[in-house]
Amino acid sequence: MNINNIVVVSPMHNEIKTIINNRNLAYNFRFLPEEKVTTSDLEWADAFVAFNTKKDYDYSQVRWVHSLGAGVDRFLFKKKWPEDVLLTRTVCSFGQRIAEYCLSYILKDVQFHDSFQQLQTNKTWEPITPRLLSEQKVMIFGTGEIGQKTAEVLSTFGIEVYGVSLSGKNKAYFKEVLPVGSHEKRLGEVNYVINTLPLTEKTEKLFDRQIFHSLSNAGFINVGRGASVDEEALLEALDRKHVKFAVLDVFTVEPLPQEHPLWGHPSVTITPHISAVTTPDEGVDCFVDTLRNIEAGNSLRNQVNISKGF
Amino acid sequence: MNINNIVVVSPMHNEIKTIINNRNLAYNFRFLPEEKVTTSDLEWADAFVAFNTKKDYDYSQVRWVHSLGAGVDRFLFKKKWPEDVLLTRTVCSFGQRIAEYCLSYILKDVQFHDSFQQLQTNKTWEPITPRLLSEQKVMIFGTGEIGQKTAEVLSTFGIEVYGVSLSGKNKAYFKEVLPVGSHEKRLGEVNYVINTLPLTEKTEKLFDRQIFHSLSNAGFINVGRGASVDEEALLEALDRKHVKFAVLDVFTVEPLPQEHPLWGHPSVTITPHISAVTTPDEGVDCFVDTLRNIEAGNSLRNQVNISKGF
Repeated sequence: MNINNIVVVSPMHNEIKTIINNRNLAYNFRFLPEEKVTTSDLEWADAFVAFNTKKDYDYSQVRWVHSLGAGVDRFLFKKKWPEDVLLTRTVCSFGQRIAEYCLSYILKDVQFHDSFQQLQTNKTWEPITPRLLSEQKVMIFGTGEIGQKTAEVLSTFGIEVYGVSLSGKNKAYFKEVLPVGSHEKRLGEVNYVINTLPLTEKTEKLFDRQIFHSLSNAGFINVGRGASVDEEALLEALDRKHVKFAVLDVFTVEPLPQEHPLWGHPSVTITPHISAVTTPDEGVDCFVDTLRNIEAGNSLRNQVNISKGF
Repeated sequence: MNINNIVVVSPMHNEIKTIINNRNLAYNFRFLPEEKVTTSDLEWADAFVAFNTKKDYDYSQVRWVHSLGAGVDRFLFKKKWPEDVLLTRTVCSFGQRIAEYCLSYILKDVQFHDSFQQLQTNKTWEPITPRLLSEQKVMIFGTGEIGQKTAEVLSTFGIEVYGVSLSGKNKAYFKEVLPVGSHEKRLGEVNYVINTLPLTEKTEKLFDRQIFHSLSNAGFINVGRGASVDEEALLEALDRKHVKFAVLDVFTVEPLPQEHPLWGHPSVTITPHISAVTTPDEGVDCFVDTLRNIEAGNSLRNQVNISKGF
């Protein structure tokens, strides 16, 4: 593939420009914020590198699109992708970042941070014994790079980790991987459910009334995509104690609208889509690696399978 | 050593009785709450097994005292111990428990739990990027069983862990172990300080104005003993931001008195001495192991060195 002209579109275009310029790459670059992109930029470009654009562009004009995020639903979900355009995504420390995010909220729960905070407010000395991580069971939806890294970290502590994937194929660090559809049998016995799935037509509103009602006072952590969750069903399950608490980093609409009931629910923790941030340095590293692999004709581990949607 | 009669003194004496009776041990037992212990019980006993008694007994009457807790300052600190009486302490899952306790509060900090909670209260969507554990440096005071297990868990995440001990002898999982006295050089560069030291005459008020003032906005976690900390110096260091926050599980006086200023300090987390709880099952396991090792004449890994005080 012959790449000469590259357009980089990002709110961090200035930081990215500085980092790329320091690498002395033999390509022509344009670094732009989204509002400055014109049709002539797309006509000029061979490659389009972007982070979560608001508009849809005519990508059939370029040869290669590289997502500066891990999720590519922005490009594919309920859209038609031009078949001969390569789509790649960023793969970097997301797994480790998401694993630490999830672990922090599981530890907050087993160590009773909230209870001790409440007791402190009342100046009350009342011992409660923290639960050990090795006594916990977790079900992770999605056994790809991110799900597997999370399973690796959690299983280090002796947590029993179950995976759920389309194929149900066994993978390291999971005690068992269940195919979607036969995972219900374990839902009632897990302490925490983590969603790491990409948004595709198969995962839209996957977390519905039925799943939530099968849980028995479990914590729900969503680091995948908001649209995979029926938010009304989640609120109902929280009120009925099927779900003990929810930690949500992603939402159907982002930023989460002011009037949304999730903001004020006492058992919900809201974080603003920060569990897997790409730093400009990491984003550039992954983009440059991909560029080199493309030029060398190597196989790409971060190429998106268009029909699967991730 | 000839052991026939054993007195077990604990607020959990009933649970312990049930567990021990199920083991069919060929010894005579008396299970008592502290307020029921008489001098005739001590005259009768060969061994005295106790958890954190309020009174001092004449231990010279027995051959062996076993502490149901890890700390033995209750028996030794500023007291005279009868030379020919064996003193052992409980060693069980303390290390893992304390490691998970410490990790939970470090993750709470790097994942900005408090900031996101505050932002949620105001329904404000404001991304802040969590810091990775691998970017953190921790100094652990005490490189024994508990300190080392904590170092092992933290270093799994790529945290740079420094140890401080009397000897300064290197140990696995520590990047470097510094002898007390030459640890100051690193104090200014660590993000978190963890105290796991036992209380002895050498560690009383070890954490004084000088140590706290050498810190540069570090978190302080105390899972050792409260009397190792000059609590006034800590409060001052918190106000001057040498110490970013303190997580305290142990205090000079326990339960922490209602009027103590630590309860209400906005940068202090109080937990009621729960970071390393012995469950009755674990306590009995360790006691029975020790008893069998004594009878078999084996060396005891949990024998207390009276002159060291731990």
